[in-house]
Amino acid sequence: MTEKEKMLNGELYTPDNDETLFNERIKCKTLCHKYNNLLPDKLDERKELLKQIIGKFQNKFWIEQPFYCDYGYNIEIGENFYSNHNLVILDCAKVKFGDNVFIGPNCGFYTAEHPLDAKTRNKGLEYAKPIIIGNNVWIGGGVTIVAGVTVGNNVVIAAGAVVTKDVPDNCVIAGVPAKKIKDIDN
Amino acid sequence: MTEKEKMLNGELYTPDNDETLFNERIKCKTLCHKYNNLLPDKLDERKELLKQIIGKFQNKFWIEQPFYCDYGYNIEIGENFYSNHNLVILDCAKVKFGDNVFIGPNCGFYTAEHPLDAKTRNKGLEYAKPIIIGNNVWIGGGVTIVAGVTVGNNVVIAAGAVVTKDVPDNCVIAGVPAKKIKDIDN
Amino acid sequence: MTEKEKMLNGELYTPDNDETLFNERIKCKTLCHKYNNLLPDKLDERKELLKQIIGKFQNKFWIEQPFYCDYGYNIEIGENFYSNHNLVILDCAKVKFGDNVFIGPNCGFYTAEHPLDAKTRNKGLEYAKPIIIGNNVWIGGGVTIVAGVTVGNNVVIAAGAVVTKDVPDNCVIAGVPAKKIKDIDN
Repeated sequence: MTEKEKMLNGELYTPDNDETLFNERIKCKTLCHKYNNLLPDKLDERKELLKQIIGKFQNKFWIEQPFYCDYGYNIEIGENFYSNHNLVILDCAKVKFGDNVFIGPNCGFYTAEHPLDAKTRNKGLEYAKPIIIGNNVWIGGGVTIVAGVTVGNNVVIAAGAVVTKDVPDNCVIAGVPAKKIKDIDN
Repeated sequence: MTEKEKMLNGELYTPDNDETLFNERIKCKTLCHKYNNLLPDKLDERKELLKQIIGKFQNKFWIEQPFYCDYGYNIEIGENFYSNHNLVILDCAKVKFGDNVFIGPNCGFYTAEHPLDAKTRNKGLEYAKPIIIGNNVWIGGGVTIVAGVTVGNNVVIAAGAVVTKDVPDNCVIAGVPAKKIKDIDN
Repeated sequence: MTEKEKMLNGELYTPDNDETLFNERIKCKTLCHKYNNLLPDKLDERKELLKQIIGKFQNKFWIEQPFYCDYGYNIEIGENFYSNHNLVILDCAKVKFGDNVFIGPNCGFYTAEHPLDAKTRNKGLEYAKPIIIGNNVWIGGGVTIVAGVTVGNNVVIAAGAVVTKDVPDNCVIAGVPAKKIKDIDN
């Protein structure tokens, strides 16, 4: 298996010494850099660049500047997607958003994990687990979502939450680590 | 009522489909973009641009780059205001800072709220509540302050706090959600 | 003592009105600004600029854009150092990283402290305490580390943690404020 195949398969891999992955990241980060440097009113150019960066998208979506991701092709966004400033997506594994997902400023989606064992970690070995966000999800400002988390439908994640476990449908979660604080009756 | 009037009145409104609000945001974000791209030593140009962005200000104030906000005109800062890098202010409602307010890096002030009910939220309806910060307030790095919060005078907000409720005078608050951990004897 | 000597000595000092410190910050922030504006694929130029910014470094290190710090010369990084996007280091005191330190996106290291007493704080007096990070430390995304903290060897700091106290060797810490949640058997 190539390092890229290992990465996408959730196995230990080395992102740094692999030419394919290195070049893909540089290409993606160069597109993000261009995106972030466009004047905000260049709406068509911005949308065009986002389409070059993001793997799958629908008709209506918007991301405020600046925006950072690793590969882009692992990101899938549903219809009516919006993210505010400073979105960071480490998309070493799939990061999939349903329809009607709204994201506040300063949020991070981190699929990358490192081994707890320092000896393995120091060799540059890491692995990645997907993040899946359902439909109709509002993610408040300053939220962090870590590797392997699945968030259900009709969920509200309070500002500043750190989401480390799966989240069921129809609820509000908050805190570090995030816990359910309210059911939502839809 | 126009969408802008509804926004400023704390009622449900649609920021996206309204030409006035859209153009005001683009204008503000273009000024912020220019501000963030100036070389750090262009002190006079930076101050001049901040005066164009911010609604009300006194003599002494400074904001490190980058800085992001929505409209700018809803921001009022008192005398001797300082914010470190990466300040994000979603000023859909008034965001008012008293005198002698110092803000650490990576802080967010978010007046924007979305309905918990997904059906209403998905239509693009949202609302905003003011944030009021008193005099002599030190806000540590990585702090988030959400819509509707009023912070008293002589307050210290510890790094990483998420402030969801009003804060009385003369105390230190910390945590997620933030709670009083100490009184301050001034 | 000069203001710089007081700063480096951990005593109350005034960073704003001192010409030496002001010029050093502007110089450092101008280098960071250049660094952040380079195209991501300008690998050699980026490394060259990092070497101009950072006080002490070894052979292998990398910092994703953007990166912000105050002076740069107070930062020491060991061998095999990596930081992801949006690293903010307020290096008014020493910030020292051991070997094999990996840092997630949106992390902040803040050596700057202000007096709790508003009267003193409003005069612009502040002080700084060093931050020391051991060898073989993985710091997750969105982590904040405050002034005076020493982190041991073989430590993992979970995403979103706010580290306010010293951390022993061989453990995982998490939360706000961060507490030990697991021992690591190396």
